[in-house]
Amino acid sequence: MPEAAKVLIIMGSDSDLSVMEEAKKALSELGVRSKMAIASAHRTPQKVVNLVKEAEKDGVQVIIAGAGYAAHLAGAVAAQTILPVIGVPLEGSSLSGLDSLLSTVQMPAGVPVATVAVGKAGAKNAGILAAEILAVADEDVAVALKEYRKRMAKIVEEKDRGLK
Amino acid sequence: MPEAAKVLIIMGSDSDLSVMEEAKKALSELGVRSKMAIASAHRTPQKVVNLVKEAEKDGVQVIIAGAGYAAHLAGAVAAQTILPVIGVPLEGSSLSGLDSLLSTVQMPAGVPVATVAVGKAGAKNAGILAAEILAVADEDVAVALKEYRKRMAKIVEEKDRGLK
Amino acid sequence: MPEAAKVLIIMGSDSDLSVMEEAKKALSELGVRSKMAIASAHRTPQKVVNLVKEAEKDGVQVIIAGAGYAAHLAGAVAAQTILPVIGVPLEGSSLSGLDSLLSTVQMPAGVPVATVAVGKAGAKNAGILAAEILAVADEDVAVALKEYRKRMAKIVEEKDRGLK
Amino acid sequence: MPEAAKVLIIMGSDSDLSVMEEAKKALSELGVRSKMAIASAHRTPQKVVNLVKEAEKDGVQVIIAGAGYAAHLAGAVAAQTILPVIGVPLEGSSLSGLDSLLSTVQMPAGVPVATVAVGKAGAKNAGILAAEILAVADEDVAVALKEYRKRMAKIVEEKDRGLK
Amino acid sequence: MPEAAKVLIIMGSDSDLSVMEEAKKALSELGVRSKMAIASAHRTPQKVVNLVKEAEKDGVQVIIAGAGYAAHLAGAVAAQTILPVIGVPLEGSSLSGLDSLLSTVQMPAGVPVATVAVGKAGAKNAGILAAEILAVADEDVAVALKEYRKRMAKIVEEKDRGLK
Amino acid sequence: MPEAAKVLIIMGSDSDLSVMEEAKKALSELGVRSKMAIASAHRTPQKVVNLVKEAEKDGVQVIIAGAGYAAHLAGAVAAQTILPVIGVPLEGSSLSGLDSLLSTVQMPAGVPVATVAVGKAGAKNAGILAAEILAVADEDVAVALKEYRKRMAKIVEEKDRGLK
Amino acid sequence: MPEAAKVLIIMGSDSDLSVMEEAKKALSELGVRSKMAIASAHRTPQKVVNLVKEAEKDGVQVIIAGAGYAAHLAGAVAAQTILPVIGVPLEGSSLSGLDSLLSTVQMPAGVPVATVAVGKAGAKNAGILAAEILAVADEDVAVALKEYRKRMAKIVEEKDRGLK
Amino acid sequence: MPEAAKVLIIMGSDSDLSVMEEAKKALSELGVRSKMAIASAHRTPQKVVNLVKEAEKDGVQVIIAGAGYAAHLAGAVAAQTILPVIGVPLEGSSLSGLDSLLSTVQMPAGVPVATVAVGKAGAKNAGILAAEILAVADEDVAVALKEYRKRMAKIVEEKDRGLK
Repeated sequence: MPEAAKVLIIMGSDSDLSVMEEAKKALSELGVRSKMAIASAHRTPQKVVNLVKEAEKDGVQVIIAGAGYAAHLAGAVAAQTILPVIGVPLEGSSLSGLDSLLSTVQMPAGVPVATVAVGKAGAKNAGILAAEILAVADEDVAVALKEYRKRMAKIVEEKDRGLK
Repeated sequence: MPEAAKVLIIMGSDSDLSVMEEAKKALSELGVRSKMAIASAHRTPQKVVNLVKEAEKDGVQVIIAGAGYAAHLAGAVAAQTILPVIGVPLEGSSLSGLDSLLSTVQMPAGVPVATVAVGKAGAKNAGILAAEILAVADEDVAVALKEYRKRMAKIVEEKDRGLK
Repeated sequence: MPEAAKVLIIMGSDSDLSVMEEAKKALSELGVRSKMAIASAHRTPQKVVNLVKEAEKDGVQVIIAGAGYAAHLAGAVAAQTILPVIGVPLEGSSLSGLDSLLSTVQMPAGVPVATVAVGKAGAKNAGILAAEILAVADEDVAVALKEYRKRMAKIVEEKDRGLK
Repeated sequence: MPEAAKVLIIMGSDSDLSVMEEAKKALSELGVRSKMAIASAHRTPQKVVNLVKEAEKDGVQVIIAGAGYAAHLAGAVAAQTILPVIGVPLEGSSLSGLDSLLSTVQMPAGVPVATVAVGKAGAKNAGILAAEILAVADEDVAVALKEYRKRMAKIVEEKDRGLK
Repeated sequence: MPEAAKVLIIMGSDSDLSVMEEAKKALSELGVRSKMAIASAHRTPQKVVNLVKEAEKDGVQVIIAGAGYAAHLAGAVAAQTILPVIGVPLEGSSLSGLDSLLSTVQMPAGVPVATVAVGKAGAKNAGILAAEILAVADEDVAVALKEYRKRMAKIVEEKDRGLK
Repeated sequence: MPEAAKVLIIMGSDSDLSVMEEAKKALSELGVRSKMAIASAHRTPQKVVNLVKEAEKDGVQVIIAGAGYAAHLAGAVAAQTILPVIGVPLEGSSLSGLDSLLSTVQMPAGVPVATVAVGKAGAKNAGILAAEILAVADEDVAVALKEYRKRMAKIVEEKDRGLK
Repeated sequence: MPEAAKVLIIMGSDSDLSVMEEAKKALSELGVRSKMAIASAHRTPQKVVNLVKEAEKDGVQVIIAGAGYAAHLAGAVAAQTILPVIGVPLEGSSLSGLDSLLSTVQMPAGVPVATVAVGKAGAKNAGILAAEILAVADEDVAVALKEYRKRMAKIVEEKDRGLK
Repeated sequence: MPEAAKVLIIMGSDSDLSVMEEAKKALSELGVRSKMAIASAHRTPQKVVNLVKEAEKDGVQVIIAGAGYAAHLAGAVAAQTILPVIGVPLEGSSLSGLDSLLSTVQMPAGVPVATVAVGKAGAKNAGILAAEILAVADEDVAVALKEYRKRMAKIVEEKDRGLK
């Protein structure tokens, strides 16, 4: 039996898939199994609740939620669980993600959402942050993260040398 | 038995009460019965669902929801009902209501929130807008609204004369 | 004789047509007859007044107004009627709709505009919101809205399954 | 018979009076007669039209309009006349005048509003700008403006000397 | 001898030409002669001063200035003359004209700039506003403006009919 | 020997203390030991590095960093460790925390900061989020969080009843 | 004969004095002589030109300019000299310094202004930056700056210890 | 042996190269030798420290740093040196450089960054500003800058003539 997913990646619409796959790719590179789901805080609120309850039962330990516009998805997930929830604000409306950023990060006191940058950079960082959270109690992921950091640093070094 | 409330006014916190009472006062001035409730989209998500379901059963016809920060309350209500939902973005965070405005108005396609201005002016207008919606099928409210408009115009006239 | 339009959709310019048609399509899908008109709050202010007066006589029950830049159209319509007025802020200027959003939503106390999101998502939601308002007193529209919600939820479910 | 007012100063509410008086004071200091009126683009749209028509008949040559929130007043005036219209965006809402600024300045092509800064500095400049417009054909006002500029420069000089 | 230009249109760079020509076209359509010049408030500050002084001597009555980024051109012109100065904020930087808008409109008390919308709509309106200012003392321009308004209204009417 | 701190709370200046204590209080209420330190990313960059290295040795598992203005502190901490880093944007400058929010949340791909709301609400949520991260592997904290949620919900219920 | 001032601090109005004194104080603490002047880019444009020309003759090596609203002062100074010009955006308008920040920093290509933060922190940093520029060729100032950095670091250390 | 570089240009990523080359080109046109390096404040914080220390030893006198998103690079450099540091905010995220601008310019008191405009215009101005700083003590660069200014003015003159 394959290891169960540790991270659930939810997005509000399938048009968000190409961006949110950055989270999955980062997790995969760090050796963390994840699964993806589509659920909308507004069009399918009960499905969001169900997905969170299932995820808790299945041993998911971190949830990543990406949405655009008045992005309530991450907050709606956070309202249902004490698992750490990472919010990825997505572009989509004409306001370039300022709307989804404020809708995700400005959570009132009591129910936090760990918010990352708007768009692809944020989605990738959501994957890395989820791994960092898991690494608190999972030495393998900690080692993978340290290797990842070294590879990133090496790439910068190579590009710097390429400049000269 | 007193007439049941036609409008439910929900707010995320009791600190929003002094602002949201503007909605109740406007409705009262227009002869529309309303009731108020406190429920948080994040701290008590199930209570929001329950309030909406009860409201539908009790014959509520319009729901007004006011919240600050990443204001999800109006959207969370709208996700549970096809009743018209009016969102009032409230100040509260350091960002002067820009966060609650974008979180309320930028609803993605499919589930609208009828958004009004940030703060007290918006809360008052929420009450008037709820009455306008009821007036589509309630001649008494329509008459009250027309009188209200005339009174407003008269006040402007008086202030204009007072200037001279 | 065909049933008269229940919703009037006004826009400030014919360049707004492709966006505002989203409102008409949503209404049509919900079985609500609507009609469209072009009138500018600044270039043809009297025409706006006339359109509203005519609409009231013809039994229109909700007015949707879409405009860009310093979008006064919805407010100008609302100043002439106690019918519920829905404002759709449109892109067009270099400021990505932030100008039309604030010009539409920040109505001072007394004359509300029910504002939806900037652009196409907002136009579609304006249609749905108009139907929700009509549904307060029209059981057929209420039924159509409930079906519409179910179809939306089903599409999300299908896309979620497609992911797996 | 006293000379008729050359400039009409309209404001949306009497709460704007203390700010808009800056315009009157500047005009008075420049020897230009003005008169003030209160009229709201939303609560008394017909009164705005009437005021503009009267002003045209009475020989008014420039109109200054100040309003807060979704400030439509200047645009509504400009829609009724080919007289130059100066718009003063006022604070009042929680958004610090960003809403009234964009609502005033971002007029779509065809009907301009000459917009000045938000608040008191803008109101004062509206008075000066109105005088500059009149000075195009009125040598007395031109002379007064040149004196005014010299006085301003002298005050700066004195303050600079006071520093040393 | 041809009639001298009544309006000077200055822009900060020749890359602004295609936008600022909207001002010239509007003036031309209204029968007002204008001339264009390129001068930068930062690269050629003395040239700006000279152009203004020459313009005053040549009988120019209104100056239009268009610039992008930290748009100082209109303010620099206004500092040199009591002629009415119209500022057109231009796009160009990554900030979509928010920078040039605030740099143009937020003039401190004492030296006003009559600011219009960002970009092409603003440039066109600058031409119309200049004509409105001239029309205060020039009946021919006033007549041309009234005709222009009628043509605009007619176009809206035609487009509205085209819709049906 | 007392249990070592699991969470380190760093702030850029002692003027941030009253806000950042919200994080400590939330953690304390959830039974999580934390310690506070002052270190500036700009005035004492090496101290930041040292604090992080020490914290790692001492068994700290989550770091919370709060700073105002161009808030680099959380990012500077995150650059030194694979521990999860929570950033609290603080007010302080005239820009109401928009500067610190964007400086904290918009981290480029590779090094995430889990960002919460600006100011006190954010500081409190930072404490709760840190506890949620610890709860992934610490059942006691998970239980405390569930109790905390229940108490919050109860307070909302009581306030709602108090309304009636 | 006292050593001549190396830094000229210009401000647009005497109301800016209490903020701009932070620059003078920082320079004084670093052993750099400075002098202050009041001159407005709009009310006294020629005085700005004269001050810059005098400053160049008197051996001034860096100019600091602080202004609010559409802050053109630093740019106007930079247009007259190749000396490094540091711009301090000041609060003053309702827009919290966003206007003066963009007006100062978004200089078009060719004439740079070295911009610092809005308000007091920026004024202080302007003094330090001026000293850093002088230190490129003045070993005494370099030594003073290094001492200053050490003192700052020590204060942070003391505050950190005070916490424990 | 060739003259050593006086200016170090650091950027966070090789994707910034095409923009930051504007700084190098401007310096080269002004006869100032510069060198470029890639280093990330987050992915390679120690490399940033090392680059600054090396630069100081090699006689570099000004450092230019360009970065996007939450742009900490210039601040991280400034924290390590008393050399003047020029920050270039770069586009890259969906927020059009508003994030990098605020992250670069809003430095808290004590450690200034001389910030220029977002993007290419800013990068070019960073080169010119670095030359202005060097020119304080280097007559050759001062002469080159004066020539550069004249060439710029001449180009404006030519374009102005081309208009006629």
